[in-house]
Amino acid sequence: MQLLKDRIRKDGKIKGGNVLKVDSFLNHQMDIKLFGEIGKEFKRRFADVEVNKILTIEASGIGIACVVAQYFDVPVVFAKKNKTKNIAGDVYTSQVESFTHGRVYDIMVSKEFLGEGDKVLLIDDFLANGKALEGLAALVKDSGAELVGAGIVIEKGFQVGGDNIRRQGIRLESLAIVESMDEETGTIVFRGDEQ
Amino acid sequence: MQLLKDRIRKDGKIKGGNVLKVDSFLNHQMDIKLFGEIGKEFKRRFADVEVNKILTIEASGIGIACVVAQYFDVPVVFAKKNKTKNIAGDVYTSQVESFTHGRVYDIMVSKEFLGEGDKVLLIDDFLANGKALEGLAALVKDSGAELVGAGIVIEKGFQVGGDNIRRQGIRLESLAIVESMDEETGTIVFRGDEQ
Repeated sequence: MQLLKDRIRKDGKIKGGNVLKVDSFLNHQMDIKLFGEIGKEFKRRFADVEVNKILTIEASGIGIACVVAQYFDVPVVFAKKNKTKNIAGDVYTSQVESFTHGRVYDIMVSKEFLGEGDKVLLIDDFLANGKALEGLAALVKDSGAELVGAGIVIEKGFQVGGDNIRRQGIRLESLAIVESMDEETGTIVFRGDEQ
Repeated sequence: MQLLKDRIRKDGKIKGGNVLKVDSFLNHQMDIKLFGEIGKEFKRRFADVEVNKILTIEASGIGIACVVAQYFDVPVVFAKKNKTKNIAGDVYTSQVESFTHGRVYDIMVSKEFLGEGDKVLLIDDFLANGKALEGLAALVKDSGAELVGAGIVIEKGFQVGGDNIRRQGIRLESLAIVESMDEETGTIVFRGDEQ
């Protein structure tokens, strides 16, 4: 998605430790017009499959998922990272190892909102080691719902997550795949680009 | 907002401890069409003021804020509850006491994304004791931005938050104000309703 790649090149900041900061438009401040274009693009890429629910994970996936959902005309469910008083009763849970936070945490979705008959599209902002996406896929599987695919805004192609997800037979559409980035020069190479 | 009140009466569940569960359409599973109607209503109520940024707080505020932002044609910034590797540098912080989680936590926004010249509308799903909203208002004040108002989907009118916020001179628009609810009968009385 050229608009997105251009935006990453313009406003993304490359930091040490393979961190790509896109918090001016994607995951802290959020450019809602860009989210609309992202929604259109996911709808175009998944036009051939039936989707009746979008599943994402708090926090930064939620905004994108909600705007994307308008193009699919479906509700969004977000997996929660911490059990609160307000989730009582039965939940599906899965464990996720966080690259960003350096710890393991539980994610959960109420059994009321995921189950047989659901045709689920996963949406998230980033795919790096793929643990969050694998956790979401596990929730879908446990629930008896059908996983129709996963839509990711930015995939770090030099980390293992994308390959692992594809190897599991999950249909993965990433709108921008970063093959490499150079902190010193600020250069970003995307998969599929002429070099 | 009648559509919202009808939905709360239909799908809201009253639990002990003054908990109103609306997680089938508002803050776990999210009805994006309803969010669109909520966006239109906030735009109608704040039509007389200039807004150039919406500020919300993770997690359940984000989806609503992003859909609402489409009607104002502005970006959204969400305050984060935990410091991550990816927020480096200067942040505005404020302390919030959580009714739901029974603890005190820090919220923060990068100084890059809030400051002088910003005309900020706060958006959140719930207002109960008002601590989250007060924390967001404190971030806005610290940043030198202008706080033009706060839009809340559901206010618990029998708790102190709404009165405290209004007393501080903050313009508050709540789309549904619950005056009382009865766990045994399942009855909900909204402010302004005939009884």
